Amino acid sequence: MTSMPTPDPSAERPADRVAIVGTGLIGTSIAMAAARAGCTVRGWDIDPDVAARAAARSGLTACTTVNEAVTGADLVIISTPIGAVARSVSAALRAAPDAVVADAASIKEHVVAEVHAMADPQDLPRYVPSHPLGGSERSGPEHASASVVDGIVWAVTPTDEVEPEAVGRLEGWIGRIGAQPVRLSPERHDRLVAFASHLPQVASTSLMGLAATEEAGEPEILLLAAGGFRDLTRLAASNPSLWSEILVANRDRVASAIDLYVSRLVAIRDEVLEGRGADVERTFDEAKRARLTLATKPTVRAGVAVVQVEIPDEPGALARITAVLGDGRVNIEDLQIVHSPEGGRGTVHLTVAAATAEEASHVLAAGGYDPIRLA
Amino acid sequence: MTSMPTPDPSAERPADRVAIVGTGLIGTSIAMAAARAGCTVRGWDIDPDVAARAAARSGLTACTTVNEAVTGADLVIISTPIGAVARSVSAALRAAPDAVVADAASIKEHVVAEVHAMADPQDLPRYVPSHPLGGSERSGPEHASASVVDGIVWAVTPTDEVEPEAVGRLEGWIGRIGAQPVRLSPERHDRLVAFASHLPQVASTSLMGLAATEEAGEPEILLLAAGGFRDLTRLAASNPSLWSEILVANRDRVASAIDLYVSRLVAIRDEVLEGRGADVERTFDEAKRARLTLATKPTVRAGVAVVQVEIPDEPGALARITAVLGDGRVNIEDLQIVHSPEGGRGTVHLTVAAATAEEASHVLAAGGYDPIRLA
Repeated sequence: MTSMPTPDPSAERPADRVAIVGTGLIGTSIAMAAARAGCTVRGWDIDPDVAARAAARSGLTACTTVNEAVTGADLVIISTPIGAVARSVSAALRAAPDAVVADAASIKEHVVAEVHAMADPQDLPRYVPSHPLGGSERSGPEHASASVVDGIVWAVTPTDEVEPEAVGRLEGWIGRIGAQPVRLSPERHDRLVAFASHLPQVASTSLMGLAATEEAGEPEILLLAAGGFRDLTRLAASNPSLWSEILVANRDRVASAIDLYVSRLVAIRDEVLEGRGADVERTFDEAKRARLTLATKPTVRAGVAVVQVEIPDEPGALARITAVLGDGRVNIEDLQIVHSPEGGRGTVHLTVAAATAEEASHVLAAGGYDPIRLA
Repeated sequence: MTSMPTPDPSAERPADRVAIVGTGLIGTSIAMAAARAGCTVRGWDIDPDVAARAAARSGLTACTTVNEAVTGADLVIISTPIGAVARSVSAALRAAPDAVVADAASIKEHVVAEVHAMADPQDLPRYVPSHPLGGSERSGPEHASASVVDGIVWAVTPTDEVEPEAVGRLEGWIGRIGAQPVRLSPERHDRLVAFASHLPQVASTSLMGLAATEEAGEPEILLLAAGGFRDLTRLAASNPSLWSEILVANRDRVASAIDLYVSRLVAIRDEVLEGRGADVERTFDEAKRARLTLATKPTVRAGVAVVQVEIPDEPGALARITAVLGDGRVNIEDLQIVHSPEGGRGTVHLTVAAATAEEASHVLAAGGYDPIRLA
């Protein structure tokens, strides 16, 4: 890459000219974060109307062909559906010989294999597989926001063929637009997301499907379903065609993760059925300790802290706590009313930037609350 | 029961004198809801210090013996750990011959069998098994609140032996203190909670345990765990000894529910592994439709509605929406920032009393929001 002509030798910034191929919610959100960081952004979508709406939302320049969008780019991000990634990567590598081309698909090994089968081998040193772990339950450029990218983990999963400088250009740009690059191999990425993302999705969908089937004969089942059931089935409302594509593409690892999960379920089942209360308690205790450790770790969003506060159950209680923090100029990243296994309430988990956690606790204490920092 | 001498013939209220046996979080919360409704409340706990703290919190009169607490009571609620329920019920039935005695254990058939084996058979018409589906992730009388009981489903599960008037006295009183009585048989209760409560607990604990085991070799697994993983593992922080007791006591139904769940997981696994994308999509689509239907149904809390609102990602955004509702005198029952499978944000689900849902939407629209009523 050092021998490649630099489009603007005076520029210190590694990727000023960015092209987005596929301008749905994630592509347009990336465009907005890039524009905010001073990049010029061009975009293309297979649906010209989507590209036009992305342009209206983000200010990117909508192009009528992929070639027009990527020509002269320093960096191309392919954010199409998985099935179109390899074709788009190959076309972009060909049309933009100075560009690093990265994709944003949520599985990697399958996509890498497709790209390697389709692209010109001499272009492969410039192809960096990646996966920004951000999104929204909405879709379409109308709902895009730079905040979708802020602070997220962006997995960067280069193969051996990739030039180190291509990886560096992408990683530097990821940090510049506000996300956090995390490097790992495609195989490892796919194995980890099978546990951390794909298995939870399958577990949630299976639970909801089972309850729905049972409900046909027992309409009152959901009357007895408390907050815990709601927590566990929230993911079941996710996009079926997207998930079908992801799971099938990562099939071996997903199947292995399900197998391990089933083994654990069967082990607990046997402990329960045989009345081995002490074993059940030990199993639950191990999981509880792991979950409490998880509460002390940031998950996808780096640099956040969680503060727990009890609030009274009365009108205006949430308005008061959010106003106290607003007056204290502390931004709330997230707020959750924590549900117990059987549906209590009154405890709030506030997620704030780690840098403001001490200030948040101070502001809350001054406001008469008794904050407990969890993470 | 009609032949039983009424303690105060002029009273229209069915249960003015209440005794609570076991004054932990749920017992003390029930005491507070009863006191609010005008009942006089006495309480006893095996730990005199707990009883004293319950008295300080709720105003109940702490007694030094069960007999002292229940003498002269119209209604006794047994809210001890499961293992102590049958003994406490039997003692209360004996010591308070005019009282209806109800327990609050979260499983019923096992407890009923223990009571039937231990109590004087002639007392059984006055024993009404029940289960208030409320609680908190906290424990101890210090964290009790009448709000723990407000609007919850309180399952009432009489056997054939129970006098209809005893059931009526309990159900009338449940409604009077602000909860919602739902009658079903002990067997049906246990079968339904196995699916709606016990299985979600096992699913969550198993997922957290598996991720913790995997993490030993792959420390970055939780870095890739987004909001969905957090949702699914929240229950895993629940009390291990309490859950061990519940699951073992309901062992047959829990094992059956796990078996059905495992069958579904294995079916999805096979669809995925065989690359049957259309089948995976159909499975996901069925669960998605069921989950969207669930969003239109109140779960444990009757009489609530859910309104969805998008908020900008900027400081004070939550303070503003909660203030708009507070100014409009709309009480927020619950607030959730909805997470997508990959961790987006910006959509808030507000739960409000159903009677105020229209007013909430009006107030929000007047405040510049675009509310969507989900339920």
